[in-house]
Amino acid sequence: MRPSGRSAQQVRPITLTRGYTKHAEGSVLVAFGDTKVLCNATVEEGVPRFLKGQGKGWVTAEYGMLPRATHSRNAREAARGKQGGRTLEIQRLIARSLRAAVDLEKLGEYTITLDCDVLQADGGTRTASITGACVALADAFNRMVAKGQLKSSPLKGMVAAVSVGIVAGEAVCDLEYVEDSAAETDMNVVMTEDGRMIEVQGTAEGEPFSHEELLALLALARGGIDTIVEAQKAALTQAPVADLK
Amino acid sequence: MRPSGRSAQQVRPITLTRGYTKHAEGSVLVAFGDTKVLCNATVEEGVPRFLKGQGKGWVTAEYGMLPRATHSRNAREAARGKQGGRTLEIQRLIARSLRAAVDLEKLGEYTITLDCDVLQADGGTRTASITGACVALADAFNRMVAKGQLKSSPLKGMVAAVSVGIVAGEAVCDLEYVEDSAAETDMNVVMTEDGRMIEVQGTAEGEPFSHEELLALLALARGGIDTIVEAQKAALTQAPVADLK
Amino acid sequence: MRPSGRSAQQVRPITLTRGYTKHAEGSVLVAFGDTKVLCNATVEEGVPRFLKGQGKGWVTAEYGMLPRATHSRNAREAARGKQGGRTLEIQRLIARSLRAAVDLEKLGEYTITLDCDVLQADGGTRTASITGACVALADAFNRMVAKGQLKSSPLKGMVAAVSVGIVAGEAVCDLEYVEDSAAETDMNVVMTEDGRMIEVQGTAEGEPFSHEELLALLALARGGIDTIVEAQKAALTQAPVADLK
Amino acid sequence: MRPSGRSAQQVRPITLTRGYTKHAEGSVLVAFGDTKVLCNATVEEGVPRFLKGQGKGWVTAEYGMLPRATHSRNAREAARGKQGGRTLEIQRLIARSLRAAVDLEKLGEYTITLDCDVLQADGGTRTASITGACVALADAFNRMVAKGQLKSSPLKGMVAAVSVGIVAGEAVCDLEYVEDSAAETDMNVVMTEDGRMIEVQGTAEGEPFSHEELLALLALARGGIDTIVEAQKAALTQAPVADLK
Amino acid sequence: MRPSGRSAQQVRPITLTRGYTKHAEGSVLVAFGDTKVLCNATVEEGVPRFLKGQGKGWVTAEYGMLPRATHSRNAREAARGKQGGRTLEIQRLIARSLRAAVDLEKLGEYTITLDCDVLQADGGTRTASITGACVALADAFNRMVAKGQLKSSPLKGMVAAVSVGIVAGEAVCDLEYVEDSAAETDMNVVMTEDGRMIEVQGTAEGEPFSHEELLALLALARGGIDTIVEAQKAALTQAPVADLK
Amino acid sequence: MRPSGRSAQQVRPITLTRGYTKHAEGSVLVAFGDTKVLCNATVEEGVPRFLKGQGKGWVTAEYGMLPRATHSRNAREAARGKQGGRTLEIQRLIARSLRAAVDLEKLGEYTITLDCDVLQADGGTRTASITGACVALADAFNRMVAKGQLKSSPLKGMVAAVSVGIVAGEAVCDLEYVEDSAAETDMNVVMTEDGRMIEVQGTAEGEPFSHEELLALLALARGGIDTIVEAQKAALTQAPVADLK
Repeated sequence: MRPSGRSAQQVRPITLTRGYTKHAEGSVLVAFGDTKVLCNATVEEGVPRFLKGQGKGWVTAEYGMLPRATHSRNAREAARGKQGGRTLEIQRLIARSLRAAVDLEKLGEYTITLDCDVLQADGGTRTASITGACVALADAFNRMVAKGQLKSSPLKGMVAAVSVGIVAGEAVCDLEYVEDSAAETDMNVVMTEDGRMIEVQGTAEGEPFSHEELLALLALARGGIDTIVEAQKAALTQAPVADLK
Repeated sequence: MRPSGRSAQQVRPITLTRGYTKHAEGSVLVAFGDTKVLCNATVEEGVPRFLKGQGKGWVTAEYGMLPRATHSRNAREAARGKQGGRTLEIQRLIARSLRAAVDLEKLGEYTITLDCDVLQADGGTRTASITGACVALADAFNRMVAKGQLKSSPLKGMVAAVSVGIVAGEAVCDLEYVEDSAAETDMNVVMTEDGRMIEVQGTAEGEPFSHEELLALLALARGGIDTIVEAQKAALTQAPVADLK
Repeated sequence: MRPSGRSAQQVRPITLTRGYTKHAEGSVLVAFGDTKVLCNATVEEGVPRFLKGQGKGWVTAEYGMLPRATHSRNAREAARGKQGGRTLEIQRLIARSLRAAVDLEKLGEYTITLDCDVLQADGGTRTASITGACVALADAFNRMVAKGQLKSSPLKGMVAAVSVGIVAGEAVCDLEYVEDSAAETDMNVVMTEDGRMIEVQGTAEGEPFSHEELLALLALARGGIDTIVEAQKAALTQAPVADLK
Repeated sequence: MRPSGRSAQQVRPITLTRGYTKHAEGSVLVAFGDTKVLCNATVEEGVPRFLKGQGKGWVTAEYGMLPRATHSRNAREAARGKQGGRTLEIQRLIARSLRAAVDLEKLGEYTITLDCDVLQADGGTRTASITGACVALADAFNRMVAKGQLKSSPLKGMVAAVSVGIVAGEAVCDLEYVEDSAAETDMNVVMTEDGRMIEVQGTAEGEPFSHEELLALLALARGGIDTIVEAQKAALTQAPVADLK
Repeated sequence: MRPSGRSAQQVRPITLTRGYTKHAEGSVLVAFGDTKVLCNATVEEGVPRFLKGQGKGWVTAEYGMLPRATHSRNAREAARGKQGGRTLEIQRLIARSLRAAVDLEKLGEYTITLDCDVLQADGGTRTASITGACVALADAFNRMVAKGQLKSSPLKGMVAAVSVGIVAGEAVCDLEYVEDSAAETDMNVVMTEDGRMIEVQGTAEGEPFSHEELLALLALARGGIDTIVEAQKAALTQAPVADLK
Repeated sequence: MRPSGRSAQQVRPITLTRGYTKHAEGSVLVAFGDTKVLCNATVEEGVPRFLKGQGKGWVTAEYGMLPRATHSRNAREAARGKQGGRTLEIQRLIARSLRAAVDLEKLGEYTITLDCDVLQADGGTRTASITGACVALADAFNRMVAKGQLKSSPLKGMVAAVSVGIVAGEAVCDLEYVEDSAAETDMNVVMTEDGRMIEVQGTAEGEPFSHEELLALLALARGGIDTIVEAQKAALTQAPVADLK
């Protein structure tokens, strides 16, 4: 029995609140249970130097955690004067994952920055970030179409992510913090809406894992991501972007 | 006529949502109109080195703004590798203001850190931060009493803040962003609930201001703070801290 | 009785030595008693990016304290790798105060940097800095006129500053260090030569202060600043800028 | 046909030169073809603060690349003042991988630091680092046993790594730089000598990849790692650690 | 003919003003012509970690230049966030030179920090710093003796420094800025009062220099330092340290 | 008797391995006994801003030490976030020394960066760096000539360096670590192949040194450098640059 009473296959309740803040071109508060991340998409003209003049766009991401998003307080990275290795690793993952969802040629010379800031953490902040950022990105593109900056959205489809892991010998989906900290193996999977893989990152925290365990985890991830993509699509049909504040 | 249709004396709608996140000992989302700040109070045993062994506590604060809290995106301070002068100035102000509300001898050797993170900015983020942080601090102290760490709360009373300014020749209370950016004079006032002053910071943005103008601004501030303190007290009576998530 | 034997209204002996160093366009050693600050004004062509092409000038400031300007040694900020919050707060105040003294349109696309470096500290370093920097600025402008860079000085008048505070229940003017560290309330006031206010920053160090106390402090500040402006004007008439080394 | 004339399954020539430098407790120059990494293991008494008093040891890693290890020169991280995200990500991976090879309880309160510095890069620097660091770690433990610091080596077995990827539609093993930069999918796999997985990190650089492609890549990785482990074991039997300079 | 009209052997007018600031245990404003450096000696109990428990003292130094000490303004190192290579090189030289003047065993577990801050630069700031710091050090030791912290001064004798160089083919002593920037060879020499060498740093700025040129420069340095040591001794006999402010 | 059995005049065995890595335009592993430094020369078009448009080239250098190049491990500078004073001092010395070997007008608007990274340290890393960097520079220039970027090499001749010192009262040449750490006086000398001086840096570690000692050290340095220049010339005649990998 999992701490939350969920079955091994079951993801936590997913909510995606669009238009959560008013300035960003896309602004989504995503909750995977008690994990809550504010994902803001910013549209800016121009691209980084290495892309100049190629007619292509760019998608990047930054990740942060409020100091008291966690059980005990973590030092503020701005005060310590640098982003930690975990932060940099996660924001690189978010950016790669979302770039895989976008036709950069079709986007043209715009840069989209996805800021994912964790307000409350209970495991799975990187997978919630990717999931929420994709919806924020969809809204940003819709707004660009509405403003005439783009003819149609360069989003190729939904991208979503989930964590899976082996806890007390059993493979489970969408780990919350108490599960995550006890997991023998932890894996983050990012997929397209048609079930192809963008990222697979599996780590043995204790014992190494076998080929069979890997297959079991991937199957769980596929099921979880199907549910999450449904939640993304449902959120996006609730209201046209123009009706968001 | 002000952009919001408010009278010169009127503050924006104030909301104070307690228990906004679950880990912090005090967690308040404060809104002054469209300005929204998450204020988390963290209780830790021990005090900074300069206070060790004196039997007194300490209250400190950190302030941050999410990159897209504002109309256009600001670079993330953690990524730039340092907190800017404005950030440091504001967090020093928040800390001084809240220390004035606390009997540090009665607190004993604990450190309270108030993290004020702006989710959405529309003017007055520092005054909203002080106002919300005071309620978070009250909840943190109540929780310490409930846990038996303290016999009674060392909070001496409410502390609240408001900005006042001269816009188009008229003194107005609780400026929103469009007013703030057009103000000739801008003043932030922090007061105790009985109307004594903790901080007065007035700045001429354009023309210097006269003694009479200063007096008019202080009177407006006094009125605004009375309303804000009422909102603080009402919020704190809504539920005992133990009933917050 | 104050430690120095001064009356409550009395400022310390003020000296303003122009031409203290030879390279800067304006160079003033200001002393408020034992507080000694070297204020150098540098004239450079061009303006920061956000002002480019508007035909307006800019005035900025930097503040520093030699490590042994104080009773015990402070770590050198260059060695620690960053300027502290207090330093940034003070240099922002100096810059705002001096900008209020200048007609930036008339200055045209030049940037003036005011470096205020404290050689010896005994309370009131920020008010001495503003006072000395204004004289250095006047000399820099006079030199620009002499060189034909400007037709006439864009200085609108003198700007000066003084600290006032409540010490042992009594309001006093121009606090030296022993008073400052014992003050219940501390206020820095920056005024134009005609007594209008540019900045008012009052802080309750212990008990909050009342409206009446605020009025008493402002009255003291007004008197002190009148004396200080006299000293500024006297210094500037001592010698034409061309005769300074 | 691959640029090097290798078959899809074939890894590059692997050399592991033990005792490459004289000060480190373990010092191995590893070459995967033209990729050359110096892996030094340092033994220090004591453990990081979070482990103090638990009787357990710690294994950590740092990674660096000489500025001209690559085709064009990269800025030196020490001169830029921070390690980049890629560096931090790789050194976290190396450390996790090697910790999985060690019985930390048996190690006791020692810290082993593995410094992996790339002298020449031609793809696969992180997999070469892990492979070489494991041999350096074995030598460091052997030396500790010889010195009487440990009764027996806490190394649980060899750990090795290889990159696999899809290049021009074909799955290939141990990519060199020209293959790596053209790969549609890139995967790094870290395994124990008995073929269980410690890390699997797969990334779609272009199109997402399918379940079948993932399986093909894992099979290639397994074969490559078998060859690499053989090279590790052969190197370790060449000379007892005491005979290394 | 030199720009100043001096002969090749002649040093600039040297002044050493003791008691220049009031807080430091030794405080000397040294002038070599228009080069002016404030040298403050701070006495603190204790020694750096690597010396703990050995009963020996330590002498260290820090060097800085006010932004407008030079003809055009240099960026403030505290604002740039690090000390430059030139600064670090000079402060290491000052510290080594002064340590050579002190019997560290006799000093006991105290640390002396010599802060040398250039108020105005006209060539030779490092040699002026060493010369002035030695007098400040003497005063600090004398004050320690007067306070009973030491039985007698651990200063072994005066240490002084001068720059020499080859300008327009001629060897000259104590170069001012216009000479320094035109010098083909530049050498800084630090000597004890009896003419033995502590540091010799010669650099060919243009053509390499010959053995004969080196000998000529050393002879000039010896003569210059004799004059400078006389100035140090004269300054120290002007007043007992207790009579300095 | 020296620890290595060498005579006072004798330098350690010098080896210079050209083409040590494959990407750099010049790549030399230099060994002075057990001191081993990898010296890579990088050619880039363009010059720093202060040289733009003058038709002259630039030569610069960076120095680093692998963390375990030394007997005990040193913290990685990239991880600490800054280069130490010793590192900056050495890389400034290397750059100045090599610039003295080059006709910058003849080089034209190219920048050569010499990266000297110490793989193993046993005293004399800076003198080995200069010696090896000069050979790497020669190879880089030869390659530029071969590619048609230059008509002929702008290298004016060999530059080499050696350390000399007084150990146990005797002057010795090319100190290894145990000698260096016991030296009373330590001197680094950089010379051209015809015996003229580029840099002389002598430091009294214990007692000041006399004029006679200085002369003895210079004579030793001259002899050592003659041997080292022979080794440089022999290395360069072993193979044309085109035959290096």
